[in-house]
Amino acid sequence: MRKQIVAFGEVMMRLQVPGYELLTQANTLQYSFSGTGVNVASAMTKLGHDGYLVTRLPDNPLGDAAISSLQRLGISRNFITRGGKYLGMYFLENGFGQRTSRVTYSNRLESSFNTASLSDYDIEVIAENTDIIHFCGITLAMADNVRESMKVLAKKVKEKGGIVCFDCNYRPSLWEGGYNKAKSHYEEMLAMSDIVMMNEKDAIYILGMEAVSTSREEQLRELIPKVAKTFNIHSIAGTHRSINSDNTHSLRGYMYKDQTFYFSENNSFSVYDRIGAGDAYTSGILHGELAGFLPEKTVRFAAAAGMLACTIVGDTPMSTENEILSAMAGEMEDIKR
Amino acid sequence: MRKQIVAFGEVMMRLQVPGYELLTQANTLQYSFSGTGVNVASAMTKLGHDGYLVTRLPDNPLGDAAISSLQRLGISRNFITRGGKYLGMYFLENGFGQRTSRVTYSNRLESSFNTASLSDYDIEVIAENTDIIHFCGITLAMADNVRESMKVLAKKVKEKGGIVCFDCNYRPSLWEGGYNKAKSHYEEMLAMSDIVMMNEKDAIYILGMEAVSTSREEQLRELIPKVAKTFNIHSIAGTHRSINSDNTHSLRGYMYKDQTFYFSENNSFSVYDRIGAGDAYTSGILHGELAGFLPEKTVRFAAAAGMLACTIVGDTPMSTENEILSAMAGEMEDIKR
Amino acid sequence: MRKQIVAFGEVMMRLQVPGYELLTQANTLQYSFSGTGVNVASAMTKLGHDGYLVTRLPDNPLGDAAISSLQRLGISRNFITRGGKYLGMYFLENGFGQRTSRVTYSNRLESSFNTASLSDYDIEVIAENTDIIHFCGITLAMADNVRESMKVLAKKVKEKGGIVCFDCNYRPSLWEGGYNKAKSHYEEMLAMSDIVMMNEKDAIYILGMEAVSTSREEQLRELIPKVAKTFNIHSIAGTHRSINSDNTHSLRGYMYKDQTFYFSENNSFSVYDRIGAGDAYTSGILHGELAGFLPEKTVRFAAAAGMLACTIVGDTPMSTENEILSAMAGEMEDIKR
Amino acid sequence: MRKQIVAFGEVMMRLQVPGYELLTQANTLQYSFSGTGVNVASAMTKLGHDGYLVTRLPDNPLGDAAISSLQRLGISRNFITRGGKYLGMYFLENGFGQRTSRVTYSNRLESSFNTASLSDYDIEVIAENTDIIHFCGITLAMADNVRESMKVLAKKVKEKGGIVCFDCNYRPSLWEGGYNKAKSHYEEMLAMSDIVMMNEKDAIYILGMEAVSTSREEQLRELIPKVAKTFNIHSIAGTHRSINSDNTHSLRGYMYKDQTFYFSENNSFSVYDRIGAGDAYTSGILHGELAGFLPEKTVRFAAAAGMLACTIVGDTPMSTENEILSAMAGEMEDIKR
Amino acid sequence: MRKQIVAFGEVMMRLQVPGYELLTQANTLQYSFSGTGVNVASAMTKLGHDGYLVTRLPDNPLGDAAISSLQRLGISRNFITRGGKYLGMYFLENGFGQRTSRVTYSNRLESSFNTASLSDYDIEVIAENTDIIHFCGITLAMADNVRESMKVLAKKVKEKGGIVCFDCNYRPSLWEGGYNKAKSHYEEMLAMSDIVMMNEKDAIYILGMEAVSTSREEQLRELIPKVAKTFNIHSIAGTHRSINSDNTHSLRGYMYKDQTFYFSENNSFSVYDRIGAGDAYTSGILHGELAGFLPEKTVRFAAAAGMLACTIVGDTPMSTENEILSAMAGEMEDIKR
Amino acid sequence: MRKQIVAFGEVMMRLQVPGYELLTQANTLQYSFSGTGVNVASAMTKLGHDGYLVTRLPDNPLGDAAISSLQRLGISRNFITRGGKYLGMYFLENGFGQRTSRVTYSNRLESSFNTASLSDYDIEVIAENTDIIHFCGITLAMADNVRESMKVLAKKVKEKGGIVCFDCNYRPSLWEGGYNKAKSHYEEMLAMSDIVMMNEKDAIYILGMEAVSTSREEQLRELIPKVAKTFNIHSIAGTHRSINSDNTHSLRGYMYKDQTFYFSENNSFSVYDRIGAGDAYTSGILHGELAGFLPEKTVRFAAAAGMLACTIVGDTPMSTENEILSAMAGEMEDIKR
Repeated sequence: MRKQIVAFGEVMMRLQVPGYELLTQANTLQYSFSGTGVNVASAMTKLGHDGYLVTRLPDNPLGDAAISSLQRLGISRNFITRGGKYLGMYFLENGFGQRTSRVTYSNRLESSFNTASLSDYDIEVIAENTDIIHFCGITLAMADNVRESMKVLAKKVKEKGGIVCFDCNYRPSLWEGGYNKAKSHYEEMLAMSDIVMMNEKDAIYILGMEAVSTSREEQLRELIPKVAKTFNIHSIAGTHRSINSDNTHSLRGYMYKDQTFYFSENNSFSVYDRIGAGDAYTSGILHGELAGFLPEKTVRFAAAAGMLACTIVGDTPMSTENEILSAMAGEMEDIKR
Repeated sequence: MRKQIVAFGEVMMRLQVPGYELLTQANTLQYSFSGTGVNVASAMTKLGHDGYLVTRLPDNPLGDAAISSLQRLGISRNFITRGGKYLGMYFLENGFGQRTSRVTYSNRLESSFNTASLSDYDIEVIAENTDIIHFCGITLAMADNVRESMKVLAKKVKEKGGIVCFDCNYRPSLWEGGYNKAKSHYEEMLAMSDIVMMNEKDAIYILGMEAVSTSREEQLRELIPKVAKTFNIHSIAGTHRSINSDNTHSLRGYMYKDQTFYFSENNSFSVYDRIGAGDAYTSGILHGELAGFLPEKTVRFAAAAGMLACTIVGDTPMSTENEILSAMAGEMEDIKR
Repeated sequence: MRKQIVAFGEVMMRLQVPGYELLTQANTLQYSFSGTGVNVASAMTKLGHDGYLVTRLPDNPLGDAAISSLQRLGISRNFITRGGKYLGMYFLENGFGQRTSRVTYSNRLESSFNTASLSDYDIEVIAENTDIIHFCGITLAMADNVRESMKVLAKKVKEKGGIVCFDCNYRPSLWEGGYNKAKSHYEEMLAMSDIVMMNEKDAIYILGMEAVSTSREEQLRELIPKVAKTFNIHSIAGTHRSINSDNTHSLRGYMYKDQTFYFSENNSFSVYDRIGAGDAYTSGILHGELAGFLPEKTVRFAAAAGMLACTIVGDTPMSTENEILSAMAGEMEDIKR
Repeated sequence: MRKQIVAFGEVMMRLQVPGYELLTQANTLQYSFSGTGVNVASAMTKLGHDGYLVTRLPDNPLGDAAISSLQRLGISRNFITRGGKYLGMYFLENGFGQRTSRVTYSNRLESSFNTASLSDYDIEVIAENTDIIHFCGITLAMADNVRESMKVLAKKVKEKGGIVCFDCNYRPSLWEGGYNKAKSHYEEMLAMSDIVMMNEKDAIYILGMEAVSTSREEQLRELIPKVAKTFNIHSIAGTHRSINSDNTHSLRGYMYKDQTFYFSENNSFSVYDRIGAGDAYTSGILHGELAGFLPEKTVRFAAAAGMLACTIVGDTPMSTENEILSAMAGEMEDIKR
Repeated sequence: MRKQIVAFGEVMMRLQVPGYELLTQANTLQYSFSGTGVNVASAMTKLGHDGYLVTRLPDNPLGDAAISSLQRLGISRNFITRGGKYLGMYFLENGFGQRTSRVTYSNRLESSFNTASLSDYDIEVIAENTDIIHFCGITLAMADNVRESMKVLAKKVKEKGGIVCFDCNYRPSLWEGGYNKAKSHYEEMLAMSDIVMMNEKDAIYILGMEAVSTSREEQLRELIPKVAKTFNIHSIAGTHRSINSDNTHSLRGYMYKDQTFYFSENNSFSVYDRIGAGDAYTSGILHGELAGFLPEKTVRFAAAAGMLACTIVGDTPMSTENEILSAMAGEMEDIKR
Repeated sequence: MRKQIVAFGEVMMRLQVPGYELLTQANTLQYSFSGTGVNVASAMTKLGHDGYLVTRLPDNPLGDAAISSLQRLGISRNFITRGGKYLGMYFLENGFGQRTSRVTYSNRLESSFNTASLSDYDIEVIAENTDIIHFCGITLAMADNVRESMKVLAKKVKEKGGIVCFDCNYRPSLWEGGYNKAKSHYEEMLAMSDIVMMNEKDAIYILGMEAVSTSREEQLRELIPKVAKTFNIHSIAGTHRSINSDNTHSLRGYMYKDQTFYFSENNSFSVYDRIGAGDAYTSGILHGELAGFLPEKTVRFAAAAGMLACTIVGDTPMSTENEILSAMAGEMEDIKR
C-alpha cells in the first residue's frame, strides 16, 4: 500500500520572527525549509508513503541545510539535484488579533530551482518511479524553463501510468501578465491532470469561466463539473475558508468525483499557523484516493487534515492517519498519556 | 496556624517541548520536577504551611537537581532519602486547539522511589512531625514495596494523631490487573483516611458501586454519602470538569461533610497548563479545613485555586491565599501595580 | 508636513519575564526602555514626524542602552541630557486569563530624570524647535524639581508658538498627598495646554468637579465642556475601556472640539500587551490634528491606533499611518504578502 | 564508489545542559540522538556513502523524534524496527577548565534496542545489502539477546561478502563480570572482523595479553601484530589521546596493515565537544580503505576527521571529505567566503 | 558533624547580559540572586552543613523570587525577614579577552537590607542556633543601622559560643570617608572575630599598618602575625591572585594559625566566572576548620574550592567536598560517566 | 570638535547561527545589519562624531528593520533613500579552533543599493554636510551605476572641502574581470582620496606595482611612498594581521604620513568576532586625524580599536575613546565596577 509520491517544486527558506515581534523589534529568526511540494511530499510520508521532491538546490551550506531539513521530514534526497547559486527565502512576521501576518520575499527568481532547466533533472528515472506526482500553480508562474520542466515531467509521468495531481493555487503578484498570461499554461496542466485542487474562483478568474449563480456554493456546483468535463479530470477538490470575528477560522472541504459533489462539515477551529493547511488538505485527498476511502470519508479526512495542520508549528503538516481520523471523529481528549 | 504538611510520592522529571512544537520538530526541552506529592506540598507552603515530601531520589546529578527544584518550591529536604539509580521522567508536547497534548513516560517502575522499601524511610520521625499527610492513588499502582510503605506510613500517622488525606486518582494504564486488582488496595487506604478526593466515577469504577441515577450530580449525591459512611471518612471532595468548544475549561467543585453537600459555581476559564489543577484543588480543601473556613467557602476557595493553577506555568500551583481569595471574588484587574 | 514632536518624560527600563512564568519561576528577563514620553515620541516618528525626548539619563552602560533603544525607535538623542546615577525600572510578570499581570517598581524617585533640575535642560533651544510638546500627569507626581522643569518648559514652548499637549494620567500610588496635593499642579498644566487627554473620572477625582448625571457618557458630556471652557483648551480627547469576560478588551474613543463631541465605534479586540495603548491613542489624536483630519476621522484613527498598540509586543506603538487606516477600515487579511 | 554502510547499535537520546550550567542550575536541555552506530553511519553519509542503522526504536513520539533526527543526519530509516517501550538517555553537563564534564545515564537496559531479539531484525535483507557493517564493544556489553543479534548479523554479512568492522570500545561500568566475562565475546567478534579499532590497552585488559615493553608505542608495536595474526584481521587502527595542561587535546592515529605500522602526526587542537571523535576516526579509516587511499594517507585522514569532530557541536561528525582533506593539509583560513 | 552556618548580608539581584554582548546590543538578561553571605551560606550547604542567611527582603514578587532562589541553593528561609521596599541590583556585562567585564549598580542604599534596623531581626534566636556566623566588610560600608545590627549580632553569637568569621573585603567606592572612616569599624569587627579573611593590603590600607618589606609575601609574613596578635584572632587566611597574559588566572592561598603560615600551590586555571571565588575560598577555610583538616590541607582545599568556583556559572559556589578533593588532587578526567 | 562623518555603502543583513552549530544543525539565526560603511559610521558616533550612511534600502519590513538597527547604532537616517526591492544578506557559521568560519551570500547584486543610480541620492545636500566621507573597494566591485554614484559623490565632497577616505579592500570573488578590470577604478578613487587604507599587497595586486624587497615590511616601505606620491595622498594606513597557532590573532598597524612611517606594537589577543576589525582600525585613524593626535598615537589608537573590535559581538565596533585609550595603555582590570 506504500506508494511513491513525488512533488515537483521549489524549496523556500522560511525565516520567522519568533513570537509576535516585528522585524524591527527582534534580533533572532527561526528557520525552516518548506514549499508546497515539500509540504505535500512530507505529509504523505506521515501518512505511510514514500515522499520525494524533484527540485534543485545550491551546492552550499544553505543547500545542505535544506536537504537535512527535508530528510528530517522524511523526504528522500534521491531526486534532488545540486546546482545554481541561491535559495528562495521569505521572512514571516506573525500577526496577532487585528494585526495581520506579513510575508516579505527575497528574490526567488534567481534561485537554483527557478534557474534550473529540464536537463538538470533525470526525468526518465523519476517518471519510472512515480505513483503520484504533484504540481502547483505557483511553480507555473516562475519562468519558461521551469514551466518546460513541469510540463515535460507531467507528460512523462502520465505516459508511465502515474497519476498527475495539479493544485491551481494562483498568486497574483507572481504573474506579470496576469490571468491572461496564466490561462493557457493552466489549461495545459489541467489537460494532463487526474486530480485537481481548485474552487469556483479559480474557474472564474484563471479559466475565465462565467457563472450564473452568485453564492460560492452554487457557483462551485455550476462550474466545477464543466471544468471536470472540459479537461477530463477524475477528481476535483478544494476548500472554502473564512476567518471569523473571534479569530477562529472555518474550513469546508469539497470533492467532485464521478459527477457527484461530496462536502465535509464546515469546521471552526483555533489557528496556530495557517500556512500549509491547503497542502494538508491536498494530502488528505490524495491519501483517501490511494487508500480507497469512500469519497465522503476522503473529503472529511482531508478537511480534518487541513484543520490539524493549522495547529502545527511551521508550514509542513505533521499528522498521522490515526491522528487525523481521531480529529475527524471530533474526539477531544484532555491529555493523551 | 502554620501546619506540617507531608506528602508521600514520586518526583517525576517533566521534560516539556517549549511552545507548540512536537518532539520531532524541536531541539530543546524545559525541565522541572513535579508529581502529585510535590504539587500538594508546594501549594501548601504558598498557603503558609511547612511542606515536606517523603520520597527517595538517586544520589546523582539528577537527584541533586530534583532536590534543588523542590527547595525552590519551598519544600523541605528533611524527609527525602537518597538511593536507587533512576528518576521517573515524562515528556510533554503541548497541544493546541483541536490537537491534544501528549505525554510520553520513561520507565518509572525502576525509579528510586518505586524501588524503595519501607526501611528506606524514617517512618517514626515522619509520623511524629505530621499534621496532615497526603497520598495519591497513582502511587498505589506502583509496586508492592511502595504500597507497603504507603500503608504503614498512613497507619503510623493516624496513630500519632495526624490527618490522612487520600486522593483516589486512578490511572488505568498503570494497573495491569485493572480495577479488580486495585479495589482492595483503595479500600484499605480509604479505611485509614480522613479526607478523600474522589467523585462518583471513582465510586463506580474503583469501588464497584452501582448507581440508580444517571446524571453525574445525581450519582454523586447517591454514592458519595455511602462511601463516607462505609469508610468512616470525615470529608470527601472533588470536581467535575469539562472542556468547552471554545477551548476554555469548566470546573465545579464539591465537598461532602457532616452529611451535607457543598458546591462551588461552575467556573469557565482559559487554560495555560492544566496539569496540577487537581492538586491545587486538593490543597484548597486541605487549607480550608485547617483554616476553619466554612465548608461553602472551602469549596469555592478550592475551585478558585484549581482555576488559578490552570493559568500557571508548570504542574505546581504557585498562588497565595490572597491571590486565591481575590480570584474567588471574581476581581479582574487590568494590571496590578 | 513632517513636524517636530517633543515629549518630556522619564525613561523606564522594562524588565519582563518572558512568556507566562512568575519571577519566582523564571531566570531570564527581556528588557526594553519605555515611558509615556518615549511611546508618544516614537509613535509620532512612525506616523512620519521627527520625535524628540527631553529627559536625563545616567552616564553609564544602562544610560547608553536606553539611548540606543530610543534611537532604534527613531527618537533623536539631541535633547537628552546625561547625568545623575540611576534609571527607573519596572518588572513585569504577564498574567494569563484570570491571573492578573503584575508590575513591581524599583525606586524611581532617585532616577536621573527625577533628580534633574531645570538647569539640566537647554530649555531655550528645545522651545525654539518644538511644534508639539507632550507632558504626562505621571511626571507631575514626581518631585518639585521635576514639576518646575515641566511647567517652565510648557510655558516656554507656548510662548514660542508650540502646541502643548497634556495627558492627565493620574496614578494614585505616586501622590503622597492624594488628589488634594495634585489638583493645583494639574490646573496649572491645564491652563497652559492646547490638547488634553482625559475623561470624566479625571474631572471628578482630580479637578474635584461634580456630575449630576450617572452614566459615564453622560458625565463626559456634562463635564468635559466645562473643563474645556475653564482652561480654554482647544481639544480634549480620551477613551472608555473595559475588559470583557472572554478576555478581549473594548475601547471607545472620544474627542471634544469646537463644542462638539465625536466618538469612535466601541471596538472589541484581542490584546497581546496593553501597556502603551493610551499613548498610541494620544498619538493618533495628535497626528489627526496635525494632518488636518476631520474630527470624526481623527477619533476613529486614534481608536484604531490604540487597538493596534494592544497587538504589538512592548509598551511602544509601532504602527504606520497606512496600517492604522487599514485597521480602521476593518480590513482583516489572511496574510499580507 | 558510493557504498552501503550499515551500523548496528543503540540510539541514545542526549540531553545536554546548554552552556556551562549544572543540572541543578539550569532549566532547559538541548536534545539530540546519537550513539556509536549513529555517528559512524552519519559520518559515512557525509563522506559520500549511504548510511543505514540497524536498531529498534519505540513506537512513540520519542521514537519518531529519533527517526527524524537520524534522517536529518542522512541515515536511512529502512533497517530500523519499531517496538519495545523505552529509549536510552543520557544527560550531559559540560565541564569547563578544571571542572570535568559529567554524564548521567537513564536505565538503558530496558530500551527498545536492548530488549530486542534476533527476530526483530530482517537479517537476510540487511546482509544482502551491506558493503561494510560496523559493531561496537559497548553494544556487546548489553544483554544476551543483543549479543546474539550482533554475532548472527556479523556472521551473515561476512557470509555474503561484506566487510565486518568492530570497535573494541570497552566501558567498565557496563560489564558486571568485568574483563573475564567480556573476553570470550570480544574474541568471537574479533574472529569475524576485517577491520578492528583498538589499541594496546584493549589487548592487555580485554584480551589478557602481556607486554614486555613499557611505553605505549612499544606496547602497541609488540601486541597489535599478535592480535592481527591471532584473529586474522586485515587492518587494525586506533588512537592515542591526551589532554594537555592548556586544555587542548592531542591525538595521534595509527593503522597496522600488511604487517606495517602507519602513524599520523600527533596533532594538538582546541576541543568544543569531544564525544564522537573516536567514531569520526573510525569513519576516516573506513573511508580511506574504501577509497583506496594509501595507508599513510588513510591514517592522517582519520586523525584529521577525529580532530574536526572535536570542533563540531554534538556527538555526530559532520565534515565532508574536502573539509577533512583541507584540515589535514593544515590550512587555516581566516573566514571562508 | 553537620553545623549551623549563618551569614549576615545583603541579597543582590544579578542581571547578566548572556554571552558577550553589551547592554546596548542585547535585549535579554539572566537573573540570579547572590551576595557574599548568600555565597558562603550556600557553599557550606554543598559541603554538608545547614546554611542560613540573616537578611531582609521586600515583601513583593522580587523578594519572593529571591527567597525561592536562596532555597534552591539550599539556604533556609528561617532567619529571613520581610520588609522595606527595594532589592539591590547589579548589571553584569561579560568581558572577553582584552575587554574588561563591567558591573553597573542600582541604588542599593535604599534596599530592604540596608534600611533594616536591629529590631527587624530576632537576634536572640539567631545567636542561639549558630555554630559559625559570617560577616563581610562590604556590609560594614553600608549605613549606621546596618553596622549596628552587624556588631550586635557578632557580639551575641560570640557570647553564645559561636565562631565569628569576618571577611575584610573593602570596596573603595562604597566608603565616602575612605579608609579613615572605615578603620574603626573594621577594628571593632576584628576584635570580635575568630576567623578572618584578609591579606597584607588590608593591613596596610584599612588598618594603616606599615611594612618594612616590599614583596607581597614578605609583607604578609610581616603584618599578619601582628594583626592576629593585636586582635587575638585564631586563624587568618586569604589569597594572592593575578591575571596572566593568556587570560588564565593564578591563585595562591595562605592561612596563618598557631603562629605558623601555611600556603597552597600557586594554581593557574581557566576562568568562566570569577565572581564568588573569594567566597568559595572562605567556605573552604571554614569547612577545613570545622572538619578538623590539618592546616596544610585546609589551605589547599580552600584554594581548590576557589579555583572550581571560577569554573561555575554565577556568583555562588556549587562544588561538593568530593569534587573539591578531586580537583585538589589534580585529577583531570576526560568525561565523568 | 564633533564632525559629520558620512559613509557610502551597502547595508547587509547578517544572519548568524548562534554558538558553534552549522546551518544543517541549528534552527535559529541571530540577525543584525552591517557593512563597511555601517561599521565606520557607527564607530565614529561612538568616538563622539555624527555618523551618516548614504545608501538605499527597500521600502518593506526588512528595510525598516535595517533602519531601526542603524539608528540603534547611532547612525542618522537622513541620507538614506528608500527604493528597490531587496536587501543583500549573508549567513555566518562560526568556526571553532581548526574549523574555519563560513560565510554564504545571497544575491546581493539585486539589492536596493546595487540597483540604485546617482539620481536616487541627493548628492548636493550630502556633499554640503560632510566633513569626511568614507568609501570601500568592495562597493567599487558592484556595478556601473554604483561606481558612478561613488565617484560623483567623492568628487562633489572634495569640491566642497570634505575629506575623502578610501579603503582599498579588494574581494576577488566579486570582480569578474579580476585585477585588470578593477585597476582603473581603484586609480580613479585613489586620485580623489586624502586618506587611504591599504597595504603592500594592494599595491602589488591591484595597482600592479612591483617590489624589489621580499619581506612584507620592506615591501610596505618600498611601495606605499610611491602610491602616496603618485596619487597625492595625505595619509595611508593599514595593518598586517596573522593567526597564531593558539588561535589568538596578531595585528600591527602602520600609518604613512608626511613621508614618514609610524607603526604600532604587534599586539596578540583573543578573538571573539573578527569581522569589522579593519573598519575599527579605519575609524581609529580617522578619529586620530580629526582629533589631532600625533601620528604615533593615532596608529596605536587605531590598532587598539581594531583589537577591541575583535572582542565585541557582531561586525560593528562599539568602543568609546576612553575604552580604546585604556586598552592602548595595556590596562587589564579584573572587573570594572
